[in-house]
Amino acid sequence: MTPLETSLAYFRAWTTGDTDTAWALLAEDVVCHTPAGPLQGREAVAAFMGPFAAMLTHSNLLASGGDAEESTLVYDTATSAVASAPAAEVHAIREGLITEIRIIFDRLPFALARGEVAPLVR
Amino acid sequence: MTPLETSLAYFRAWTTGDTDTAWALLAEDVVCHTPAGPLQGREAVAAFMGPFAAMLTHSNLLASGGDAEESTLVYDTATSAVASAPAAEVHAIREGLITEIRIIFDRLPFALARGEVAPLVR
Repeated sequence: MTPLETSLAYFRAWTTGDTDTAWALLAEDVVCHTPAGPLQGREAVAAFMGPFAAMLTHSNLLASGGDAEESTLVYDTATSAVASAPAAEVHAIREGLITEIRIIFDRLPFALARGEVAPLVR
Repeated sequence: MTPLETSLAYFRAWTTGDTDTAWALLAEDVVCHTPAGPLQGREAVAAFMGPFAAMLTHSNLLASGGDAEESTLVYDTATSAVASAPAAEVHAIREGLITEIRIIFDRLPFALARGEVAPLVR
């Protein structure tokens, strides 16, 4: 598989409930740079993505691309918490496994929905 | 210019203070989908991006790609408000102008820095 094919297989797996297949595409020592900070290792990434995957009601790939070492996915998601939460991921791939992920999304609607932050009226 | 070349020219312009060049690469009726909702027209996009461009102390392109109609940029930014704020943009391009932008970034650190939201202790 090319890096993009690996990334697309990962995306399709976690967005369709086949998380075993998804996590098997992560290197055991994968590093994932999230808005809240870095996560180290497959188990930590699965613990981060798993609850979100379980909430997912819809997903839609908006753009994808890649070269011999990296790939980029941009997609929209819908969950019961947030109707539209687009995200982007850049993956580094080595020997068919995802070794590094940078994931970009807006935490604000999730933080508001969870009551972690509240708007200030000024 | 290919769509990716147009997008890279736009990125280089607004991240290096040459906002006139940047805004000239936007179609007059460009639509920009931001985390806070859609913006209509070149002036609205310039009014959204301009203050951020003015705060920028550093930027770093992390990934880019494109095809005949679209391009994707992933980059990191540094401002006095937020030390690292990565973002992704998907552009639709027609006749050398950017007609549609989807920009993804984490609003949470900016909303906290501006005092628009406050953490809730539970």
